[in-house]
Amino acid sequence: YFGARRTHGRDAALACARALSIAGYVGTSNLEAGQRLGIPVVGTVAHSYIEAHPDEEQAFIRFAEHYPGTTLLVDTYDTLHAVQRIIALSHRLGERFKVGGIRLDSGDRATLARQSRSLLDAAGLTDVRIVASGNLDEYRVAALRAARAPIDVFGVGTAVSVVADGPSLEAAYKLVSYNGRDCGKLSPGKVSLPGPKQVYRIMEGNSAIGDVIARRDEAVMGEPLLHCVMRKGCRLPSASPGLSASRAHLAAGLDRLPARLQSLSDAAQPYPVAVSQALLAAQSRFQQLHSEDT
Amino acid sequence: YFGARRTHGRDAALACARALSIAGYVGTSNLEAGQRLGIPVVGTVAHSYIEAHPDEEQAFIRFAEHYPGTTLLVDTYDTLHAVQRIIALSHRLGERFKVGGIRLDSGDRATLARQSRSLLDAAGLTDVRIVASGNLDEYRVAALRAARAPIDVFGVGTAVSVVADGPSLEAAYKLVSYNGRDCGKLSPGKVSLPGPKQVYRIMEGNSAIGDVIARRDEAVMGEPLLHCVMRKGCRLPSASPGLSASRAHLAAGLDRLPARLQSLSDAAQPYPVAVSQALLAAQSRFQQLHSEDT
Repeated sequence: YFGARRTHGRDAALACARALSIAGYVGTSNLEAGQRLGIPVVGTVAHSYIEAHPDEEQAFIRFAEHYPGTTLLVDTYDTLHAVQRIIALSHRLGERFKVGGIRLDSGDRATLARQSRSLLDAAGLTDVRIVASGNLDEYRVAALRAARAPIDVFGVGTAVSVVADGPSLEAAYKLVSYNGRDCGKLSPGKVSLPGPKQVYRIMEGNSAIGDVIARRDEAVMGEPLLHCVMRKGCRLPSASPGLSASRAHLAAGLDRLPARLQSLSDAAQPYPVAVSQALLAAQSRFQQLHSEDT
Repeated sequence: YFGARRTHGRDAALACARALSIAGYVGTSNLEAGQRLGIPVVGTVAHSYIEAHPDEEQAFIRFAEHYPGTTLLVDTYDTLHAVQRIIALSHRLGERFKVGGIRLDSGDRATLARQSRSLLDAAGLTDVRIVASGNLDEYRVAALRAARAPIDVFGVGTAVSVVADGPSLEAAYKLVSYNGRDCGKLSPGKVSLPGPKQVYRIMEGNSAIGDVIARRDEAVMGEPLLHCVMRKGCRLPSASPGLSASRAHLAAGLDRLPARLQSLSDAAQPYPVAVSQALLAAQSRFQQLHSEDT
């Protein structure tokens, strides 16, 4: 995950690194997230580092000396030329050559990855990995994988830091119960379902077949998904399971969703979510109560 | 400005309140921004406050007692009904009635504003202002103004906190000079203009007619727009002029732009920005230098 500079400030950068670690990203370039959250820190050389040297060769030599095992950025001037420089460097350094990877940050990554892989393999550098970055998103990563481009690592930034197809979250907290009394809103187009709720997931074998939103005290088949995380203004210890438990919980949850929902395009048969009879009845009672009041 | 809950964390909420204050917004609902930056704090009652009371009337009475001069939110259940409750309250309280405004947060704001204005005026409440909010953006505000809806204040949140039509900023820092030497990138599609630069704004009377991007040391007619803000790693005092000076600077700058650019739609005749001959020559020298190197 390479997106810290695109997030809306430091809070967001940390929240993003944390969320992506739970989602399964293996590392972050955000040192603060590494230190605070224990997420493995990964990184490569910057274009400005290469530019700050009189030529690319000196920049590569200097960086590889400082950080053996590093990934060198090869697209500042001419990608394949840069790969050839690295091969020349490997000949010169012999055993002392430790470069771990090259990074392709622009251009046609599928073609450049194939050409770079050929050059590296021909020079015996089969261990040098290929990292792709630069405006990647889920669709571009899927296309590169479908094209079987020899890319070992994807670095994603902007597209997961600020999600262009869903930039603002319309979700908002709505009061539905106060002091044991159901409450809600009746503004046109914004009517809420009054009362405390539970969501039940209906399973068939190890696969979820649908959810039911119900009253919290209603008896419904299925596994309750909501757990109490705060009581009397204090977060419960069970509400902070830690990064690795969260990652495992997410992975298990995704695993139980039918395969048709695990796709980048809309599922032909959407996942069914029902509202219970008791909840609809409560809403009708609430509306009636309010119309008597006015 | 009502958008703090939509921003990506606390940093972003503060940065947003600050930027919007410079842009001319008169207040913020973000208390932290009020305290830290001295931006006037404004606010109204929340839906949850109304819902937490057994009925709307009790909620209005209680809130108006706590905050005389407040703006009451009228769309929780039925907007015009709520306006009538406020009128009834004014009859009951007489001199002690201090409500300053009503807020329309959903539905057809133009129609509701007209209907509410009629009811309020007929009751002699001509001083009670009408505030509109709820998913407003520049286009909806312009439409409400074009329709001459009697709205005194617009509260905007989501649309300025996370801008859906430009959620991520592609701008990035690029090294163009290091230790007195021009540098740049030659990656296809990402070629940069090497060397330190200045931007000159060409004026005709009090109106800007175009900009020229030039070498920093080049003699070009016009007013230089870039000023040094940091020297030897320290921010210069002149780089922090304060909110009111920044607001005045922005207003003066906007004032000098031709009217055709001060529109929500694309200008028929775009603003011309030229690149100087010396800058193009420097780029060509840089490219040649690099091709000799490879």
